Amino acid sequence: MSDDKTIENGVSRRQMLIGTGALAAGVAATSLGKWVETAQAQGGETEKWPWPYVKLDPQETAEIAYKEWYRIFCGGAVISSVIGQLREKVGGPYKTFPIDSFVFLEGGQVGWGTICGSPAGANIVANLIIGPRIAGAHEGHQISADNMDFYSKAEMPVFVPKNPKIDPSKIVHTVSDSPLCHISVGKWMKAANLPLGSPERKDRCARVAASSAYRLVEMLNAWHDGTYKPTNSFSCSKENGITGQYNCTECHGDKVPEAPTAKK
Amino acid sequence: MSDDKTIENGVSRRQMLIGTGALAAGVAATSLGKWVETAQAQGGETEKWPWPYVKLDPQETAEIAYKEWYRIFCGGAVISSVIGQLREKVGGPYKTFPIDSFVFLEGGQVGWGTICGSPAGANIVANLIIGPRIAGAHEGHQISADNMDFYSKAEMPVFVPKNPKIDPSKIVHTVSDSPLCHISVGKWMKAANLPLGSPERKDRCARVAASSAYRLVEMLNAWHDGTYKPTNSFSCSKENGITGQYNCTECHGDKVPEAPTAKK
Repeated sequence: MSDDKTIENGVSRRQMLIGTGALAAGVAATSLGKWVETAQAQGGETEKWPWPYVKLDPQETAEIAYKEWYRIFCGGAVISSVIGQLREKVGGPYKTFPIDSFVFLEGGQVGWGTICGSPAGANIVANLIIGPRIAGAHEGHQISADNMDFYSKAEMPVFVPKNPKIDPSKIVHTVSDSPLCHISVGKWMKAANLPLGSPERKDRCARVAASSAYRLVEMLNAWHDGTYKPTNSFSCSKENGITGQYNCTECHGDKVPEAPTAKK
Repeated sequence: MSDDKTIENGVSRRQMLIGTGALAAGVAATSLGKWVETAQAQGGETEKWPWPYVKLDPQETAEIAYKEWYRIFCGGAVISSVIGQLREKVGGPYKTFPIDSFVFLEGGQVGWGTICGSPAGANIVANLIIGPRIAGAHEGHQISADNMDFYSKAEMPVFVPKNPKIDPSKIVHTVSDSPLCHISVGKWMKAANLPLGSPERKDRCARVAASSAYRLVEMLNAWHDGTYKPTNSFSCSKENGITGQYNCTECHGDKVPEAPTAKK
């Protein structure tokens, strides 16, 4: 848990940054070769942000993510689809980031059903490139919220690969209303009436990873162009006094607990 | 979501590996200078596992994590406490891993209340060092499950720092029965009757990060010595046909849905 004051104030502060000189400077610094000048080093060789970024093709990125799912699964696939291309196109810090270490994001972290690896991987990528909010730029933080918001509200899977392993007409679409693997996969399995081990479920998850990578790259490209605008302004800690999602009643029903508010 | 066959069979396969030549080779390779020989490169300069590891002091690591929480919050603090020391003691790939990018793990990923940053950060560290299961060693995967199992079942916070910012007698202890931030923090806030913004809640989370770092280093040290044994053998996908935790009824009550089992 972070300092909630920052979370509570994060959105408005981030929104204030959009279009200001602070953002413009950040965007200008994304051109190749300038990243060292914007150093916010804490001791690590790559802890200088933003990392140099060149715009990627969302369609091509999604195709890579779809293919990579069958090698390194959801979180690894999203990370590989962006970082792998930037290794080739940019080099630098992307060369030393160990993509394959993130296979463990599968199944909501080694099968525990917590956050789906697709938004978890997308969040990692956004914050690698843009850097943490403590280094001054809040767009990595905000794109993370947008990754989870998109994942939760989209009719997943959105992306259709050029050469799908499973006939797309056999893959039903569902809205998870949650970034959690257990909820997302559970709702899909119920709608499809298919087990976890079915080829359809696997291809659904590969296409979810591809959909997440597509949307991530759209946002990163907009950030690079200076046109990124957050699509999600929800702050659970601000509205409800606790970290969480936007849909309390889905789990709590009518009995949504009140967070303690007494200050000592 | 990963290939569930691997998740379903993962524990027994991992357990089979314990004490075999495969594990012994992995352990031997953790001595400095040998990591290049055990390369499983996929293209990245650091995608050779295991990364060289030297045993760390759990107490000292936890003290660092406690302090770092107040700079980079839960996930970043756990990562920094281990990777930061290894930058100094080992160098190599630890120098280029961008610790501060992981501030976003705060609040269950930018305040969305999904997996707490403490186990999420611990999972990242284990898999950076040991590598992904697809590279042949399953201990990183298993330590991740143990990170979440410890986090869920311990009377948190376990660790007491030498110089606590808040009198330890004012910090109540709770069992989350979940790796999720929303659940863990919510149960603690209810028991303590204190708000998210209270100094006690913040210090509780700093101590949870420290507790997670302590336990992680105990396991990494055992892995280095060849004595690591998984403490958690639960596989939700194997037992229930879906990714998830061990306590279905806590959320579902008596109406735990059956996962579809029909094979096409």
